[in-house]
Amino acid sequence: MIHLVTAGESHGPALTAILEGIPAGLPLQPEDLQADLIRRQNGWMGGGPYRGASPRMKLERDRAQILAGVMDGKTTGAPIALLIENADHAKWKGRAVDAMTIPRPGHADLTAGMKYGFDDLRPGLERASARETAARMAACSVCRKMLAALGISIGSYVVQIGTIRAGLSAMPLEERLKRAEENPLRCPDASAREKMQMEIDQAMKAGDTVGGVFEVAAVGVPPGLGGYAVWEQRLGSRLGAALFGIPAVKGVEIGDGFAIAAVPGTQAQDAIGCEGDALTRASNHAGGIEAGISNGQPVILRAAMKPIATTISPQHSIDLASGEKTETRYERSDFCTVPRAAVVAEGMVCYILAGAVLEKCGGDSMGELRERFDRLARGALGDFHIDPKPKIFW
Amino acid sequence: MIHLVTAGESHGPALTAILEGIPAGLPLQPEDLQADLIRRQNGWMGGGPYRGASPRMKLERDRAQILAGVMDGKTTGAPIALLIENADHAKWKGRAVDAMTIPRPGHADLTAGMKYGFDDLRPGLERASARETAARMAACSVCRKMLAALGISIGSYVVQIGTIRAGLSAMPLEERLKRAEENPLRCPDASAREKMQMEIDQAMKAGDTVGGVFEVAAVGVPPGLGGYAVWEQRLGSRLGAALFGIPAVKGVEIGDGFAIAAVPGTQAQDAIGCEGDALTRASNHAGGIEAGISNGQPVILRAAMKPIATTISPQHSIDLASGEKTETRYERSDFCTVPRAAVVAEGMVCYILAGAVLEKCGGDSMGELRERFDRLARGALGDFHIDPKPKIFW
Amino acid sequence: MIHLVTAGESHGPALTAILEGIPAGLPLQPEDLQADLIRRQNGWMGGGPYRGASPRMKLERDRAQILAGVMDGKTTGAPIALLIENADHAKWKGRAVDAMTIPRPGHADLTAGMKYGFDDLRPGLERASARETAARMAACSVCRKMLAALGISIGSYVVQIGTIRAGLSAMPLEERLKRAEENPLRCPDASAREKMQMEIDQAMKAGDTVGGVFEVAAVGVPPGLGGYAVWEQRLGSRLGAALFGIPAVKGVEIGDGFAIAAVPGTQAQDAIGCEGDALTRASNHAGGIEAGISNGQPVILRAAMKPIATTISPQHSIDLASGEKTETRYERSDFCTVPRAAVVAEGMVCYILAGAVLEKCGGDSMGELRERFDRLARGALGDFHIDPKPKIFW
Amino acid sequence: MIHLVTAGESHGPALTAILEGIPAGLPLQPEDLQADLIRRQNGWMGGGPYRGASPRMKLERDRAQILAGVMDGKTTGAPIALLIENADHAKWKGRAVDAMTIPRPGHADLTAGMKYGFDDLRPGLERASARETAARMAACSVCRKMLAALGISIGSYVVQIGTIRAGLSAMPLEERLKRAEENPLRCPDASAREKMQMEIDQAMKAGDTVGGVFEVAAVGVPPGLGGYAVWEQRLGSRLGAALFGIPAVKGVEIGDGFAIAAVPGTQAQDAIGCEGDALTRASNHAGGIEAGISNGQPVILRAAMKPIATTISPQHSIDLASGEKTETRYERSDFCTVPRAAVVAEGMVCYILAGAVLEKCGGDSMGELRERFDRLARGALGDFHIDPKPKIFW
Repeated sequence: MIHLVTAGESHGPALTAILEGIPAGLPLQPEDLQADLIRRQNGWMGGGPYRGASPRMKLERDRAQILAGVMDGKTTGAPIALLIENADHAKWKGRAVDAMTIPRPGHADLTAGMKYGFDDLRPGLERASARETAARMAACSVCRKMLAALGISIGSYVVQIGTIRAGLSAMPLEERLKRAEENPLRCPDASAREKMQMEIDQAMKAGDTVGGVFEVAAVGVPPGLGGYAVWEQRLGSRLGAALFGIPAVKGVEIGDGFAIAAVPGTQAQDAIGCEGDALTRASNHAGGIEAGISNGQPVILRAAMKPIATTISPQHSIDLASGEKTETRYERSDFCTVPRAAVVAEGMVCYILAGAVLEKCGGDSMGELRERFDRLARGALGDFHIDPKPKIFW
Repeated sequence: MIHLVTAGESHGPALTAILEGIPAGLPLQPEDLQADLIRRQNGWMGGGPYRGASPRMKLERDRAQILAGVMDGKTTGAPIALLIENADHAKWKGRAVDAMTIPRPGHADLTAGMKYGFDDLRPGLERASARETAARMAACSVCRKMLAALGISIGSYVVQIGTIRAGLSAMPLEERLKRAEENPLRCPDASAREKMQMEIDQAMKAGDTVGGVFEVAAVGVPPGLGGYAVWEQRLGSRLGAALFGIPAVKGVEIGDGFAIAAVPGTQAQDAIGCEGDALTRASNHAGGIEAGISNGQPVILRAAMKPIATTISPQHSIDLASGEKTETRYERSDFCTVPRAAVVAEGMVCYILAGAVLEKCGGDSMGELRERFDRLARGALGDFHIDPKPKIFW
Repeated sequence: MIHLVTAGESHGPALTAILEGIPAGLPLQPEDLQADLIRRQNGWMGGGPYRGASPRMKLERDRAQILAGVMDGKTTGAPIALLIENADHAKWKGRAVDAMTIPRPGHADLTAGMKYGFDDLRPGLERASARETAARMAACSVCRKMLAALGISIGSYVVQIGTIRAGLSAMPLEERLKRAEENPLRCPDASAREKMQMEIDQAMKAGDTVGGVFEVAAVGVPPGLGGYAVWEQRLGSRLGAALFGIPAVKGVEIGDGFAIAAVPGTQAQDAIGCEGDALTRASNHAGGIEAGISNGQPVILRAAMKPIATTISPQHSIDLASGEKTETRYERSDFCTVPRAAVVAEGMVCYILAGAVLEKCGGDSMGELRERFDRLARGALGDFHIDPKPKIFW
Repeated sequence: MIHLVTAGESHGPALTAILEGIPAGLPLQPEDLQADLIRRQNGWMGGGPYRGASPRMKLERDRAQILAGVMDGKTTGAPIALLIENADHAKWKGRAVDAMTIPRPGHADLTAGMKYGFDDLRPGLERASARETAARMAACSVCRKMLAALGISIGSYVVQIGTIRAGLSAMPLEERLKRAEENPLRCPDASAREKMQMEIDQAMKAGDTVGGVFEVAAVGVPPGLGGYAVWEQRLGSRLGAALFGIPAVKGVEIGDGFAIAAVPGTQAQDAIGCEGDALTRASNHAGGIEAGISNGQPVILRAAMKPIATTISPQHSIDLASGEKTETRYERSDFCTVPRAAVVAEGMVCYILAGAVLEKCGGDSMGELRERFDRLARGALGDFHIDPKPKIFW
C-alpha cells in the first residue's frame, strides 16, 4: 500500500516527506522532482510567476533531496525520503519572535489554539501553512512518474479567479491542458486570463486576496480502479478527501458536479456505444467515475478555493493576551494561490491514483506492475464473456 | 477508533453492519434505530413518503436487530452487530433470474463488470445499490445516539430538486432543520416544495428521474475536532470523503463552498469578536471548519446528487452478450432519492463526528467520555493563556 | 485489502463476521465452512472430541450461514457476511442472571471491569470468551479456500499438553500434518498422545486445567510475501500478532524459535544450494521467513497456550461488590483447549497469508489473482538476472 | 493516533523518521534522543561497547537532528521529523561497488531478490540492515519521554547469550533493570556475564556469531490499555508484532511464556487479593496482560534473537550471476547484537504503549493527556461500583 507522510513547518529547518510503497525499479533522480516544485511555485514551468503569487518564491527556489529509497538511480521498494530545506530558516533561527496573540479569521490560528492549548498561536500557522504542500508535491511527483510509466497523465487548469470565469466549453480537454502550461495563471482562455490578472492586481492594491476554481484531469486511467464494495474504496470518495485535504479548498465536484442535479436522468448519463470492438461513451458527465469505479474515460475533478485568509487590509479579531477587540496583523502571504493550488491538486490526484493502481495490480517492482497493468480490461467488447442464461442467485 | 463495515446485497437474505469502537454504557435498544430507518425510507418520520420515492418501501419496512455489543440495554464496548432482513429476498430465493447483459450508463453495471470480470452483471448492481445504505443508516444511528448524549445534533434539509431551488437565505438554521422534519421532501420552503413535487411528478410521467441538492448541519460540535497536522486528519477531508461515499453524490461543499471563490478575502472570513467572556463569530462562511478543525460553529455541508441512473425511458447501451447496440431494460428503482439521501448523509456525518470526538477524548465508557468532553475548550476567552512575550522558536 | 471483523458474545443471539477483500469468483457454499467449524469444536473431523474439550459442543453444533458476498455459489468481491447462531442463547434470553462480582484471575473479568467501568463483570467475559473464535474460524475458512485454490495449504499439530511433549523430530512435516487429523488431540505421536489424554483426565478429576503447545505449518507459500521495508510488513510480525491475538496464547516462535538463540551463527542458517535450475535449502531453521519475507519453504510457527483460567477448583479473589476476600465461582468451561486452539491458529495464519498474497498480487477476481500468482518467482535460478558489474549507488 | 515511519539505507546519506500523533507541549531537545542512541550503539550509557559489538560504532556516533514538530523546545502536535546522518556515507558516495550476487542464508539477500527482482542484491541488505533501527530508536525515545512524563518507565536486560543463561530468579525486577545499565552486555548476573563475554570472544575468534535472549519490562503501566473486543487491539498482539518487527527476533513470550504451558491452571494465574483499599496480585505469571488488557502489573516480555546471519566463516550459497555453488563473502557486521537489540526492543515497547495510552486517553496536549491519565482506574477497590443484583441481559 502506498502511503505518504510529511513533516515540517513554514519557517523550520526543512520539510520532509516519506513515501512508502512505490515499487522497485522506477528510475528516479532529484531532477525528476524539480518540475513540479517549480510549477507549484510559479503556476507553470515558464520564466516566472504571475503577479500576486507568493513573494516567498523569490526567497527560495525549492529543491528536493532524495535521502532514501533510491539506489543507482532507481527506486528499491524501500520508503523514499525527501528533504526540502527552507532557505528562509536561517533568518528565523535564534531570533526572538513576538508571540502571536491575535488570531486571523479563516486561518488555523484560533482553532489550533483551542485544540492544542498553545500559549502562542505561532506553532499552529507554522504547520497549517500551505508551505507544507511543497513536501507533498515532491512526493507526489514520484507517484506521477510511476503513473507516467504506465501511460497515465495528470494535468490541471484554472477556470475561475475571483469573479472571472473562463469560457472553455468549446475547447477540448487536451487543448486546455496544453494551454494551461503556457502561462503562469494556468488559464487556457486567453481573454479571461487578462481579466483574471487584473482582478488579482486590484486585490493587491486593495490589500485584499482572491480565490478561484480549478479543474484537474487524469487521462489514461484504466477502468476498474476504486470500488463500491466498501464505501471508503470509492474512487470519488478518495479523490474528494484528497482535494479537501488541500488548505482552503471548500468545494469539490466530480464530472458535471452540482450542475448535474438539475438535469433529467435520461440526459445525465454517458450513453454506452461501441466502435468496432471498442466500447465508447457519448459524453463524460460522470467525470470518469461510475459507482465509485473508474470507467476508462478521463477523470475530471473541480475544486473551489476560498481567497487566502491573510489580508493586508486588517480584519476584526480579538487579542487573546488582553481580551481586547483589535484587528489582525499581516503575515507575509500570497494574494492569489489558485494556479499554484491546482498544481498541488494534480499531485494529490497522482497520489490517490497511484495507490488505486497498486491495489488493483499489486506488484513489488515496476516490471511486475507494468505487465499486470497492461493486461487490465480496457473496456473492449472482447473482454466480456457475458453469459445470457438465467441463474439462481440465492 | 470507531470503524463501521457493512455487508449485504439488495435482494440477498439480509444486510449486516458491524460497528466497532462505541464506548460501553450507551443505552441502546432496537427501537433507537427505527427512527432513522423510517426517515431514510420516507424522507421523514410522518405517515408516508413523497411521490417518487421507492416503491420498495411498501414491500419492506426495515427493522434492525441488534445481534451483539449490547447487554442489559447498554453497549458493552464490544463490536455492535446489526441485521436488517430483506423482506424482498423470499421472492428471489431459488428463482432463476435472467442474466443481466445490458449495462445501464451511470450505474455500476459496466464498471463492476470490467473490474470483477463478471459473466453476469447482476452481482455488481446488487451490492452497488443504495439499498446498502440501510445498514449504514442503522449503524450511524448508534453514532447519532452517542453524539446526542454529548449535546451534538445533526439534521438535514433539501435545497434543490431538479431545477427548483428553495429560497432559504432568510430562514435561520434551526427553523430549516425543524421544518425539514415536517414533510417527506425535507424542504423547509413550502412554495418551492410544491414545485419540487411537481417536477418529480413530471419526471415520473416521462419515465425519467430527478436529482437535487441537500444540506447537512451539525450543531453543538465543540472546537478542536479534526486537524491540519496530517492531511487525512482534516475534518473537511473526512466529511468530504463520507459524503462522496454515498451513491450518486457528485459534488460536496463546506460552508459557502464554490460561491466563496468569487468573494474578496476580506469578506470571506468569519470575523472574531467577543461577548463578555465568550468568543463570537460574525458569520459562518467557513461552515464551522477552519484549517481542517471544527471551530465551534455549526458544521454546514452541501451535496449534489445526480438523478438516478435507472430510468423507465430507455437509454443507449450495448448488449454485452451479443455485442449489439440496444437500449437499457428497467430495473425497479426510485424516481427521486434526494430527501432520502439527505438522511443517509446525516448518518455519515454522525459517523465521522463520532470518530473525531473519540479521537479527541478517548474513553472506553460513556462516563469517561462525557467527563472529558465536558472539559473541552468552548472558545471562551478564559480558556486561553496566551503569553505575549517574544520567543525563540528555533 | 483483506479485512475481517467479528461481533458476538458467548451467550448472545449470534456471532457475526464480515470479511472484506476476497476476490470475486471463488466458489463458496456454507458447507465449505463446516469442516473447520467441526475441527474447531472437536480438534478434528472425526466422530467426537477428546475428553476435556468443551461440554458446550454437545449443546451446539456450529453452522455458518452466508448472508452476503456470495451469489450463484461464487463470491462477488463484496463483503462476505457470516452468521453463526448461538443455540445456547434461547436458555439465556429473558433470564435474570446474577451479577458477576468476583473476578477470576487470568481472565478478562478484572481488566475489563477496570477498562470499561462495568457495574457487573459479565459483559467482559461474554466478549473475551474464546467463543468468538468460531466467527473468526468461519471467515478464515474462506481465506483457506482462496489459498487452496492457489495451492497453499495450512495445517497444525499439537506438540505438548501439560507436561507431556511429543517426540516428532524424526517425523516429516507431511506425516505430522496427516496424523494430526486422525485424532482429536491433534498429536501425531501416538505414545505421547495417550499420556496427554491422561494428563487431561487427571486435571479434570482435580478440577484443574491444562495448557500446551502447538505448531502451525503453511506449505506452498511462494517466496516474496511480507517485507522488511516497513516493520509492520514483516511476515513474522504479522503472523506473530495473529497468534498472540488468540485468547490464552503467551508465547510464539517462528522456525526454531528460542532454541536458535543458543546455536552458533554458522549453524543457524539454511544453506542455499541448487538442484538443476532450482534453488534449494539444506534445512528450515528460519521457519520459511527470512528478513520478514517468505522464502518459499514451509512457514512454521509454534504457540504456547496457558491453561484455561477458569477452574472448578476455586482460586483466590475479591468480591468487588463487598470488598471481601473470597474464591472464584466456576463458569462452565473447557479443561484443555490446545487442540482446538491449534485449529483456530490455522485460521489466523490463513487470514494473514491471504492478505499477504493479495498485497503481492492484487486482483479483483480469482482469475486475475491466479494468473498473477502463477507467475511469481519460485526461487529458480532462472528467475534471476543478476548483473555482476560494479555499480555506483550514491 | 501515533504512527511512526522510517526511511533510510545502511550506507545511504541519512536515516529519517517521522512520528505523528505526539501531543503538543512535550519538552523535547535533540539531547533527549541521545541517551537511547548511545545505549543502542553500546548496550549501555557507559564508556564503550562490549567486545563483539559493531565496529561501526567507532565510525559513527549517531546524532539525531529534529527537523520538524518542535518549536521553542516543545512539541507542537505536528509530525516530528528526525534525521540521523550516516557518517559512513561519504566513503560510499560515488564509489563503484561490486554487485552482490551471492545471497547470504538467513539475510534478506535472496528473499529480497525474489520479491523485488533486483539485478544486484545490495538494495535488499541496505534497507533490511538493522541500521534502520537507529531511526526507530530516536523516534521511540520521544515516546519514552512522553511515557516518562506520565510515570511509565521501560527497561531491559539480557538473560541469555549463546548457551549461557543468567540466573535471575531471585533478583527483583527493579534490581535487574538497574544492573543492566551498569554493563555493556546488559546482563544483571555478574558471573553469567563473564561467561557470556567469553562465548562472544570465542565466536569472534571462530569467525562465528552468537544469539541470545533478552527481557523488556514496562513499569507503571495503568490497567485498561489494549482490549479484547477486536483481536488487533490486544496488547499482547501489538507488543508481539512490535518485537517480531525487530530483525532476527524468532521468538516472543509474554510473562511466563512457553513455561506456563506445563503448569496446572490453578497455579498459572495471579491470585487477586487486596491490601486496604488496593487490589493486589500474588504473582505476575501473566506478564501484566490479561485478556489482551494491561492489568496494572509490570508488563514483561521476552524475545529470542537468532545469531547474526553474516559470518566471517563462509556459508554455502550460490552465485546467482553464474549459477555456480560457492561460499558467502563477508560484509562488515556485529558478532553479537543481543544487548543492542534489547535497547531497540525497549523503544518498540515505548512506541506501542504510547499509542495505547493515547487511545485510552485521547488528548492533543500533554496537559490534556496528563489530567486524563491521572484519573485512570488504578485497580483500587474504590474504583468499582459493582452491583450484585441479577440482570436480564438479553
